[in-house]
Amino acid sequence: MVRTPQVVIDDNEIFEAHEGGKLSVDLKSPLDTQRALSIAYTPGVAQVSRAIAADKTLAKKYTWASRLVAVVSDGSAVLGLGDIGAAASLPVMEGKSELFKTFGGLDSIPIVLDTKDPDEIVETLIRLRPTFGAVNLEDISAPRCFEIERRVIEALDCPVMHDDQHGTAIVVLAALHGAAKVLERDMHALRVVISGAGAAGVACANILLAKGITDITVLDSKGIIHPDRGDLNSFKAELAQRTNPAGRTGGIAEALDGADMFLGLSAGLVPEEIIATMAPGGIVFALSNPDPEIHPDAARKYASVVATGRSDFPNQINNVLAFPGVFRGALDAGARRITEKMKVAAAEAIFSVVGDDLSVDHIVPSALDPRVGPAVAAAVAAASED
Amino acid sequence: MVRTPQVVIDDNEIFEAHEGGKLSVDLKSPLDTQRALSIAYTPGVAQVSRAIAADKTLAKKYTWASRLVAVVSDGSAVLGLGDIGAAASLPVMEGKSELFKTFGGLDSIPIVLDTKDPDEIVETLIRLRPTFGAVNLEDISAPRCFEIERRVIEALDCPVMHDDQHGTAIVVLAALHGAAKVLERDMHALRVVISGAGAAGVACANILLAKGITDITVLDSKGIIHPDRGDLNSFKAELAQRTNPAGRTGGIAEALDGADMFLGLSAGLVPEEIIATMAPGGIVFALSNPDPEIHPDAARKYASVVATGRSDFPNQINNVLAFPGVFRGALDAGARRITEKMKVAAAEAIFSVVGDDLSVDHIVPSALDPRVGPAVAAAVAAASED
Repeated sequence: MVRTPQVVIDDNEIFEAHEGGKLSVDLKSPLDTQRALSIAYTPGVAQVSRAIAADKTLAKKYTWASRLVAVVSDGSAVLGLGDIGAAASLPVMEGKSELFKTFGGLDSIPIVLDTKDPDEIVETLIRLRPTFGAVNLEDISAPRCFEIERRVIEALDCPVMHDDQHGTAIVVLAALHGAAKVLERDMHALRVVISGAGAAGVACANILLAKGITDITVLDSKGIIHPDRGDLNSFKAELAQRTNPAGRTGGIAEALDGADMFLGLSAGLVPEEIIATMAPGGIVFALSNPDPEIHPDAARKYASVVATGRSDFPNQINNVLAFPGVFRGALDAGARRITEKMKVAAAEAIFSVVGDDLSVDHIVPSALDPRVGPAVAAAVAAASED
Repeated sequence: MVRTPQVVIDDNEIFEAHEGGKLSVDLKSPLDTQRALSIAYTPGVAQVSRAIAADKTLAKKYTWASRLVAVVSDGSAVLGLGDIGAAASLPVMEGKSELFKTFGGLDSIPIVLDTKDPDEIVETLIRLRPTFGAVNLEDISAPRCFEIERRVIEALDCPVMHDDQHGTAIVVLAALHGAAKVLERDMHALRVVISGAGAAGVACANILLAKGITDITVLDSKGIIHPDRGDLNSFKAELAQRTNPAGRTGGIAEALDGADMFLGLSAGLVPEEIIATMAPGGIVFALSNPDPEIHPDAARKYASVVATGRSDFPNQINNVLAFPGVFRGALDAGARRITEKMKVAAAEAIFSVVGDDLSVDHIVPSALDPRVGPAVAAAVAAASED
């Protein structure tokens, strides 16, 4: 496995780059004359406000809100750092806004909430509704994230997506397209093991099931999820009904024995000797960050395609491939919902950008590939219109 | 009175300038390399989030929030348009954000709320607290604005100001400094009449009382406010105790007879023959927008200094002279409150910029004068530190 050069960044450089934050709110055109002031502010602006008051639908055309993404977090599950709170989550949300602009051409604002109560989060977003045009829920812990996303989707007439769930699922599906193609395997026949039953694990299981992959085994920190376990929350219990058709029990060793694909979405390390028991010629996506569940060099001894979440190894599976284009496409199409069909279309669009460059070390496009966002947006918008 | 050329702007031009809104969220530095991505987003950003989680005070240094102004409205008293709702207020709030950036160098985001319940507004801002560093309350109707401002100030450990009250009061005081100086009058001896007992009227009465002006008569739509009226809300009843020392009763005619200064802050027109009964050599600030309480050309027949809120007449009294510098100064100084002393310092700083250009047609600086914001910020910061 050819490793790309490690980006060496010392902490001073990171902290210096964050001083004063990473975002800026700017004017689309300057207020440098009395005329400009009279158009953008009083008395001119009164015409626009009066028009919107008479016809609420004009707010879409004459304000920034209808295309503004609120990046909303309560700071309860930030990166791999856990429940560090709203203020500490803000640098991540600012980074997210940077990604929305760079790869989706969308304005967005971080909204970090000093409450973890689902009722209060939903209620707050309902009150803020005229402020934005879409909601990217971010870094909200499972299982609360499932209920919160469902209720926000129900309450708001605009695109809403919890990126830790669906952004991850979309990019995993895109990468699986690439891996199956390069290995000339039938995706549907793969025996898949997912380690991690949080936001990303549940969403990945759902999208793979929806794609017709039937043999999926999911593990949480206690082991394989199956209907006889008495310690499952309602979301895991529901998952137990739809996965693990072979009725496996036990831990990661029992799950991976003979499996075709390992999808790591938790911080739990997997010993090399267990990876060695997988069926030959398989797929390992070890996505825990910054430390993959197994080092890619070790995984490569047993698997034919290996991917991680890191930029310094081949096949980086990163949500930035999905969310900017997904929201851009949904907003371009005026969609009120981000449907399963739109998510699948996004995954296929990401895969399509790889094109002739497909190889075992290039199953997904680079996170910096400027073609991805527009391709995803177009596919999502088209899927929305169907 | 020399009138500056009327700015002729047709509606098409105004609406075109508002298409898609007036604001943009941009990156302070581009994400065009893997290295930049690794600093601003994963894995680099985790270092910053971890540091803030360990020491909450670092959020001030390493996020944009501590210097971000939330421009918050419920759309209940927008310009002269009344209760047009949150969505229709948004163009005004976007304009406000443009002014914060242009004249105060501050980032700000419009937050428009789909609720007019004071409890819910206060509660929402408490939940949003880690998102911003200051709150500019805007276009919230009286008397709700008084309670809401008081409660938000109590609840949040950051600068909070309802601009319709205090921004107006600051600029009026600045203009009165200019008028008194050019007329060589003692400000404290003026007999002042304020038409309008809403947000601006109450705040102007308060700042003038605080400056030691004792003979102030305030009118609402029913006439002169005095303690014997049975129809006063608690804010007006309280004002009745502190104003109108001569015990006047009646309407605008009774109030203005022999008065030295008229301060118009309502949409109620005042007939020329009533302005004619004011004491000679006086002051008329007819600030209703877009239609002043009396046309400035008519007012000038009787008063020595005339000001309006319009840019196409001399002496434009516009809040933009105050709020960008007030918030900038408060944030520069790390102030938790915007005190009366800081407001008075802001007014004096605005007046100071006029300098040697002082004349009856130039009692305040131009709204576009780039010296005003920094002068106000410096004065407010200094007053905060005392």
